[in-house]
Amino acid sequence: MIKARDALTKIKPYVPGKPIEEVKRELGLDDVIKLASNENPYGPSKKALEIIDSYLTNLNLYPDGRAFELKTALSNYYQVQEEEIIVGNGSDEVIKLLSEAYLNPGDNIVQADVTFSEYEFGALLMGAKVKKVPLKDFTHDLEAFYNYIDDNTKLIYICNPNNPTGTMVTEVELIEFLEKIPKGVLVVLDEAYAEYVADTSYPNSLGLINKYPLVVLRTFSKIYGLAGLRVGFGIAQKEIIANLEKAREPFNVNLLGQVAAVRALDDKEHLEYSFRENAKARESFYQECQKRDIKYVKSHTNFVLMQVEDADTIFNKMLKKGVIVRSGSVFGLNRFIRVTLGSIEQMQRFWQVFDEIGG
Amino acid sequence: MIKARDALTKIKPYVPGKPIEEVKRELGLDDVIKLASNENPYGPSKKALEIIDSYLTNLNLYPDGRAFELKTALSNYYQVQEEEIIVGNGSDEVIKLLSEAYLNPGDNIVQADVTFSEYEFGALLMGAKVKKVPLKDFTHDLEAFYNYIDDNTKLIYICNPNNPTGTMVTEVELIEFLEKIPKGVLVVLDEAYAEYVADTSYPNSLGLINKYPLVVLRTFSKIYGLAGLRVGFGIAQKEIIANLEKAREPFNVNLLGQVAAVRALDDKEHLEYSFRENAKARESFYQECQKRDIKYVKSHTNFVLMQVEDADTIFNKMLKKGVIVRSGSVFGLNRFIRVTLGSIEQMQRFWQVFDEIGG
Repeated sequence: MIKARDALTKIKPYVPGKPIEEVKRELGLDDVIKLASNENPYGPSKKALEIIDSYLTNLNLYPDGRAFELKTALSNYYQVQEEEIIVGNGSDEVIKLLSEAYLNPGDNIVQADVTFSEYEFGALLMGAKVKKVPLKDFTHDLEAFYNYIDDNTKLIYICNPNNPTGTMVTEVELIEFLEKIPKGVLVVLDEAYAEYVADTSYPNSLGLINKYPLVVLRTFSKIYGLAGLRVGFGIAQKEIIANLEKAREPFNVNLLGQVAAVRALDDKEHLEYSFRENAKARESFYQECQKRDIKYVKSHTNFVLMQVEDADTIFNKMLKKGVIVRSGSVFGLNRFIRVTLGSIEQMQRFWQVFDEIGG
Repeated sequence: MIKARDALTKIKPYVPGKPIEEVKRELGLDDVIKLASNENPYGPSKKALEIIDSYLTNLNLYPDGRAFELKTALSNYYQVQEEEIIVGNGSDEVIKLLSEAYLNPGDNIVQADVTFSEYEFGALLMGAKVKKVPLKDFTHDLEAFYNYIDDNTKLIYICNPNNPTGTMVTEVELIEFLEKIPKGVLVVLDEAYAEYVADTSYPNSLGLINKYPLVVLRTFSKIYGLAGLRVGFGIAQKEIIANLEKAREPFNVNLLGQVAAVRALDDKEHLEYSFRENAKARESFYQECQKRDIKYVKSHTNFVLMQVEDADTIFNKMLKKGVIVRSGSVFGLNRFIRVTLGSIEQMQRFWQVFDEIGG
């Protein structure tokens, strides 16, 4: 048998939030809700859905490999040049491209110890090492990040707000950090949840890409409600984007994803509604926690990390009752579950089941 | 500025068939047809399109990362186990995964000198070398392939039928080859155009995966008419698939692609119609060539390679008249164009323009 690369042996399989259909199938349940993958409970932008119909008969054709229309729309929306944008099959893919473009064996990345798992995946795939900086009060500790950077550090990942803790670093903190990082290091700012942030101290990161070696990642999978179509993107200086483009497959973003994303970007109403409802759901979630004397981490996103006795036990008990949450054990947080903020009905069901099982 | 991996410098950017919208935009044309990317001119399976509507409101949810329904359907259709299947964002992605799973710097792949470009892309990306075996009569010369295999060879790619020549190797030839290849080498059989082949000597490759170190690649982008949705797959022994799975991103295949592919697989009528019409279009194409005394390569696919004075000249002249073909120069064939077999109307337009420009 042909021998696989040694690098593969270090990769731990990703544990996704369980799909609703799988839970129904495995547990014989009819009515299952998922609060496990930070999806937008109010659905996709209707404008985005409307456009899909008119492209169905074109599905025999390859998508535009250069994503011209989508890049034009992003370019106008974010006031950056088209050459400063790369579009991926979800921002997951852009993370893989970053790894493929920049990481050699012996290199390393620096990231938080509790954060999104794909940074580590990309690094291990390319034979690079992963240096993990402990969170401080569930937040990226940028002061401490310095101590982990060495001559072999190529990428620094800051998930902001951080998944799974929901915390953020401010513009002041970020700039202070960027001013001090050594040459030859690229900082990747994963802003998948940016649109949910209300705090005005949140970085205006796109204003920084021309001053610092920075890649900003965004996605249509969260507030835009298009996770099923897989569209994410990165914004950075042209030279960086040109390198990522070299590692990209020619037709990486499907046709419907491209056209739907253009429309979603234009649907302010959907964005604002989702933002507002999420903010309400978050406040309400805090109150429910307080009522029960449950500790939680204040969040800038559409999910909240809450403390429980034992994460896997709660996860499994709730699963059997048709409520899928995320066990913190996946992230090394055995006493926390991560709960996506769902609709009012979904959250009522969540608390009902949580109380029932004696969470 | 951060230095990219040296491997990137060797990658030549992929030159895709020009999208219709781009040609309209750049040349100010209204009526453009594309015979450049071997898409199914009869469109996608209607059954596949019907299912899409019922999944639109689910697009806020991530797709099933394990592609359970699609793997089940493929497993039943091809009579293989689910663990013997990997689904990709087009078979392009499976080729990238093969490279990521098996190729270290210093390794090499063996492939035809004129074939699909993504094998080379994947190898260069991982720092591996590419050994190219000249075609013989436009066909894979498996006898000659032996001479290129050395101790560092990890992957052998056989595109069958071959893109861009349309020729095939037979089951007898393939088995003879597989019997003799050294241990530790994996043979990748790219069968993107398999469903178009009528010749009964074409390999039943799925019957061989348990006897030989073989990966069979298939796609929904060609006869199934779903290029826009990006779904391809690989079939091989479990141990091989398990390695590819390690390099895969968790949500690599979008939701609509997964559900549409399940339906397309079930739409025999669409498959048979597309097969029949293509066979007719191919015969008719040969006749038109013969009328004009033009040399062509007999094809087992939905495209034909035909000889011209100068490929780029013809390509450009036809482009200006709104007919996009593929210049052979992309493949190093400066005296050939590759023409996708379109509908009757499209082929009339093709010949009309071809005659007009004095092709």
